[in-house]
Amino acid sequence: MSDVMNALAFLGPGRVGFVRKPVPVPGPRDAVVRTTASSICTSDIRHVNGGMTMPVGRVLGHESVGMVSRVGADVTRFSVGDRVTLSAVTPDGCCDACQRGTPGQCGNTMMGGYKFTSRKDGCLADYFHVNDADFNLTGVPAELSDEQVIYATDMFSTGLAGALDAQIPPGGTVAVFGQGPVGLCAVTGCRLLGAGLVIAVEPEPDRAARATSFGADLVVDPNRDDTVAQVTRLSGGGVDAAIEAAGTPEAFADCLRVTRAGGVVVNIGYHVGDLTIPHEGFGRGMGDKTIRTRLCPGGREWMTRLLRLVRNKRVDLTPLTTHHFAFPDSERAFALMATKTDKIIKPFIAHQPDGPAGRG
Amino acid sequence: MSDVMNALAFLGPGRVGFVRKPVPVPGPRDAVVRTTASSICTSDIRHVNGGMTMPVGRVLGHESVGMVSRVGADVTRFSVGDRVTLSAVTPDGCCDACQRGTPGQCGNTMMGGYKFTSRKDGCLADYFHVNDADFNLTGVPAELSDEQVIYATDMFSTGLAGALDAQIPPGGTVAVFGQGPVGLCAVTGCRLLGAGLVIAVEPEPDRAARATSFGADLVVDPNRDDTVAQVTRLSGGGVDAAIEAAGTPEAFADCLRVTRAGGVVVNIGYHVGDLTIPHEGFGRGMGDKTIRTRLCPGGREWMTRLLRLVRNKRVDLTPLTTHHFAFPDSERAFALMATKTDKIIKPFIAHQPDGPAGRG
Amino acid sequence: MSDVMNALAFLGPGRVGFVRKPVPVPGPRDAVVRTTASSICTSDIRHVNGGMTMPVGRVLGHESVGMVSRVGADVTRFSVGDRVTLSAVTPDGCCDACQRGTPGQCGNTMMGGYKFTSRKDGCLADYFHVNDADFNLTGVPAELSDEQVIYATDMFSTGLAGALDAQIPPGGTVAVFGQGPVGLCAVTGCRLLGAGLVIAVEPEPDRAARATSFGADLVVDPNRDDTVAQVTRLSGGGVDAAIEAAGTPEAFADCLRVTRAGGVVVNIGYHVGDLTIPHEGFGRGMGDKTIRTRLCPGGREWMTRLLRLVRNKRVDLTPLTTHHFAFPDSERAFALMATKTDKIIKPFIAHQPDGPAGRG
Amino acid sequence: MSDVMNALAFLGPGRVGFVRKPVPVPGPRDAVVRTTASSICTSDIRHVNGGMTMPVGRVLGHESVGMVSRVGADVTRFSVGDRVTLSAVTPDGCCDACQRGTPGQCGNTMMGGYKFTSRKDGCLADYFHVNDADFNLTGVPAELSDEQVIYATDMFSTGLAGALDAQIPPGGTVAVFGQGPVGLCAVTGCRLLGAGLVIAVEPEPDRAARATSFGADLVVDPNRDDTVAQVTRLSGGGVDAAIEAAGTPEAFADCLRVTRAGGVVVNIGYHVGDLTIPHEGFGRGMGDKTIRTRLCPGGREWMTRLLRLVRNKRVDLTPLTTHHFAFPDSERAFALMATKTDKIIKPFIAHQPDGPAGRG
Repeated sequence: MSDVMNALAFLGPGRVGFVRKPVPVPGPRDAVVRTTASSICTSDIRHVNGGMTMPVGRVLGHESVGMVSRVGADVTRFSVGDRVTLSAVTPDGCCDACQRGTPGQCGNTMMGGYKFTSRKDGCLADYFHVNDADFNLTGVPAELSDEQVIYATDMFSTGLAGALDAQIPPGGTVAVFGQGPVGLCAVTGCRLLGAGLVIAVEPEPDRAARATSFGADLVVDPNRDDTVAQVTRLSGGGVDAAIEAAGTPEAFADCLRVTRAGGVVVNIGYHVGDLTIPHEGFGRGMGDKTIRTRLCPGGREWMTRLLRLVRNKRVDLTPLTTHHFAFPDSERAFALMATKTDKIIKPFIAHQPDGPAGRG
Repeated sequence: MSDVMNALAFLGPGRVGFVRKPVPVPGPRDAVVRTTASSICTSDIRHVNGGMTMPVGRVLGHESVGMVSRVGADVTRFSVGDRVTLSAVTPDGCCDACQRGTPGQCGNTMMGGYKFTSRKDGCLADYFHVNDADFNLTGVPAELSDEQVIYATDMFSTGLAGALDAQIPPGGTVAVFGQGPVGLCAVTGCRLLGAGLVIAVEPEPDRAARATSFGADLVVDPNRDDTVAQVTRLSGGGVDAAIEAAGTPEAFADCLRVTRAGGVVVNIGYHVGDLTIPHEGFGRGMGDKTIRTRLCPGGREWMTRLLRLVRNKRVDLTPLTTHHFAFPDSERAFALMATKTDKIIKPFIAHQPDGPAGRG
Repeated sequence: MSDVMNALAFLGPGRVGFVRKPVPVPGPRDAVVRTTASSICTSDIRHVNGGMTMPVGRVLGHESVGMVSRVGADVTRFSVGDRVTLSAVTPDGCCDACQRGTPGQCGNTMMGGYKFTSRKDGCLADYFHVNDADFNLTGVPAELSDEQVIYATDMFSTGLAGALDAQIPPGGTVAVFGQGPVGLCAVTGCRLLGAGLVIAVEPEPDRAARATSFGADLVVDPNRDDTVAQVTRLSGGGVDAAIEAAGTPEAFADCLRVTRAGGVVVNIGYHVGDLTIPHEGFGRGMGDKTIRTRLCPGGREWMTRLLRLVRNKRVDLTPLTTHHFAFPDSERAFALMATKTDKIIKPFIAHQPDGPAGRG
Repeated sequence: MSDVMNALAFLGPGRVGFVRKPVPVPGPRDAVVRTTASSICTSDIRHVNGGMTMPVGRVLGHESVGMVSRVGADVTRFSVGDRVTLSAVTPDGCCDACQRGTPGQCGNTMMGGYKFTSRKDGCLADYFHVNDADFNLTGVPAELSDEQVIYATDMFSTGLAGALDAQIPPGGTVAVFGQGPVGLCAVTGCRLLGAGLVIAVEPEPDRAARATSFGADLVVDPNRDDTVAQVTRLSGGGVDAAIEAAGTPEAFADCLRVTRAGGVVVNIGYHVGDLTIPHEGFGRGMGDKTIRTRLCPGGREWMTRLLRLVRNKRVDLTPLTTHHFAFPDSERAFALMATKTDKIIKPFIAHQPDGPAGRG
């Protein structure tokens, strides 16, 4: 194994590029993983564009699959050579927030469980560091390809968690705003958890068509229809739950407007500013509504269940891939995601099977 | 029984006064109750001041105790002469919202379970009408006085429901914003449900002192302290839950700011406009927070449990009374509540024990 | 409408046959429905064979679809001629148990919500009586056939409720014991609610094959395998939840044995005697296990969601039909269900479209 | 610090006595604590009498308070000299069961989180070993005495968890069977969490009197009354929840009999054999009842909240102490607990403040 590696890093506001960095070294509870596949998330774009403060040179990325390359002395569940994946969120499993069941807020810090890029180098690299490896790594079944697994790390994890938090009663109704990759996964998640009617809200025809193939019964086009009126009508008076996956204040406010009194709004969109709760969607503060916000969950046990859903064919996430890249071309993948051009949903990025220097 | 009665009614924006009205007549499932005690709620004031559209002559009030005067043909659980009380919210028990467990939103209409004053005449009258009497009335144990019972109808029902929705873990921490009667009842509710630290937020010294006697461990004065910093410090990094009972957008926003990542905010305040979710209290939409809003629950079963708490001395609500009135003087009670002068918390209004004409 | 009708009734222990009875008359909140389709439940057989005490002449049956024939004066949601169905369980919606959210135990009486046959005549008749019609009836969408709808009334309602109570985490593992119609519906329910691995336990090859077509991933044959060892092995150490739908004490005990520490056992089987909790499946009373028992839920709102699942093709219940009968031949259907011969799962019983005398 | 110590150990079936053992050594994530106070649990007695298989020489005890004496290299939250306590149950915080929220079943093994005595030496010693110290230890506030804290480690932790699992609705009714120390703590827990009526079941007059002082509203004497009939009558038709803390199959069966249809039974008793679910308490398997079983929870976050309840005077556990001993006399304490003579509830055992050799 070489001791330097290539990594796609933040180079200043709006700028990314490859850098050379030392291969990370694991602490006693940690592991280092050699990347075999990765992808890029819209939140990477948002971070680079000012949504998060970070040092120049910080490696991007939090979605990946790989092989264990080194383990710390206290790691007992994983060995060098194991094929693994993990959630984008990597809690320590021990802090008060983790013990309370909110590992995403690890360290009692807002989004503290989200450590890649935010608190240390991310996964868009030849190798990456995994804190608390026993808690966070998950073995990948041999019969699953990297592409089948990779979108479970954040897109499906977040979308399914959103659907779960929506507490849709069996056969109930739900609207999902925004049909990017997280929204599509929320649609699939709602279907998987027993929703009786799934309404997608999406203006782009290509994404609208994908929504249908991911399980939406109906699609509302906000450019053509009055979204609130349409969703209210189609659901017979307001949906049981609405999921915000568009990341805009307008969609968030509309989620409250289309949800029936007593219903649930789940936010899984990334918002950089304040949000408004519209008066008419809140019943003067007495509408018995619930608003939940949700970071991608973490931990081995959750990820194991997600991989079981993939392996037992409850869900096929590979149609999220619209573009393939080799890792050395991932700057282009980043540019496409930043501009959302060429109808991109997700780029699948293949790393060299034997590692950067062919030696692993 | 006379067939006309006295009632305190809405006479136009900002104006209330006594009117003569026919004694109501019950439909088959309904009852008519002769009032023995009543009170006035801040929401009565808000309605009169433009918070709700209603016809001139509409009777105010939704907190009362009385004797059953007439019952409809289908009523099986109550008879003329029974001493009863009931929630301020009177659902039909049958609509979709009621069957879903959100009776406050009866008829799938925002706050549809709140029928007094909003949809029909209220209780500030010699007699009042109770829809779906078997579902809504509750027998009052003989050993309890009207005053012991009356604040269970809305103040304690709302405050306790707020504490319940806050899902405070046993021994957890909570902040309650606003120490009017609902806030005080929320403090008591938090104690009753196992909170380990209750922090009240209240600028008025008289109300702050009451908060302590209702069970607050600590009181923060927003006029003197930086509320967010103080509550965060006193709770060791943010409360498990915050309850908004002040009815201001600022308090609502502060509730989000003082709640730890992964915590719960419950709104039981009455808000007439839009609310803002502050960016820093929401974790870019990924702080795993929950916001609930809550109307006073309804139904006989809930009210029976509340009266058990009173009877078995879990809670004493009579210290909420700061002023006593006879019903003919209730215009003055209304004026005091409207101006919040003379340190009023709640006015206890006694009606004539034998009815307006001495005949029942 | 004729004022007498044909009905399949209990004629003494182990005996059933047709009787002539007056067409029922609705009270103010009730409806009378003309039956267009019905079925027979294993519990009908158990009742007749001594599981329940009832008078001779009591009409059997609690699964049916029909047209509203008469309504009481207080019924507001349904009119004569409406096509309707309803749960096998018909609570009053008002008693303490209903207000607490356990309508199956209506009147605070064990299984008090189950009124057909138990407390009044059942549905295996030309007409049947529906108490609290606004609470219990559900309109049937025109595009659905009677056969698509009928098994939602009890089989799917019970099986889905069992799956719901199992609280299977998304992607979790579950074992369903017994693949009669309720067990098959529990399998479908587990799939519908996101189970990642569904193991059916069933010795009959025909039923085992059906289990697979209803969504089981694996089937364990208790005649060939050591059930406990097999389920434990296949689930990687014990299932997250087990559902008892075989109605035997042995299956109930095995449910506890195959469930991981901290898991859930749901009983939806009908048991006539005491049950044993085996020591090794309970952790000396400290295994953090949960056992739930579940009667088929009732009420319009629940049934509306079940019909939405049928209409939007989440589930197709018609493969439960193994035999078709005309109502006059339903004694034969009863005999087949009693002996479980000819591989019967469910008999679909068609009633005359225009009523018994061709006049409706 | 000496490297050998005194410990109270299992010496064969029914026999205990002091042994000399090496002071334990911490692994990287572990700590060793010098004991300042301890107590003896009925489960220690049961283990010694054959309830658990263990090697001769295994140290007993799982309730203690002390000072950190040594810490492993990975421990970050605690230092030598910190005053600490911890739950009787010490999960690793990382296994599937811990990640699922059932740390008591750590390692996916029935009661696997219970490691003292069961899997390693217990706390009735001069020093004891704490696995996963950052996860399990809790700092003790300086203003609290050892005696105020010690019963939180198992008695109150178990009793409160039982009350929590009972999901008593606010103002609801509950019966607690058995008024040993865990039952008394369950009574206090029910009061703390908002029960409106707490009925204790206990034949011993001394324990019955204690039940009242711990918060029971009523006490039923099973030697004088028909327990089932009395509890049913006093609760107006069956309690919302019943808690088994007597550890007998009869009490477990009665819990099912006194609970209303739709109610909850929680088992916190220690049972060595099979249990019977009585037919009449289960509604033929359709009574919508829930049975939960509960091991004492573990983890720092839970223990911190329990200590907050003690510190903020929500609960005073010191009246559980009926007898005081110095550690060298703890064999006598064991004998008293084994015979339940002299009205013993709990023995408080003081260890030498400076350690066994006066040097710490």
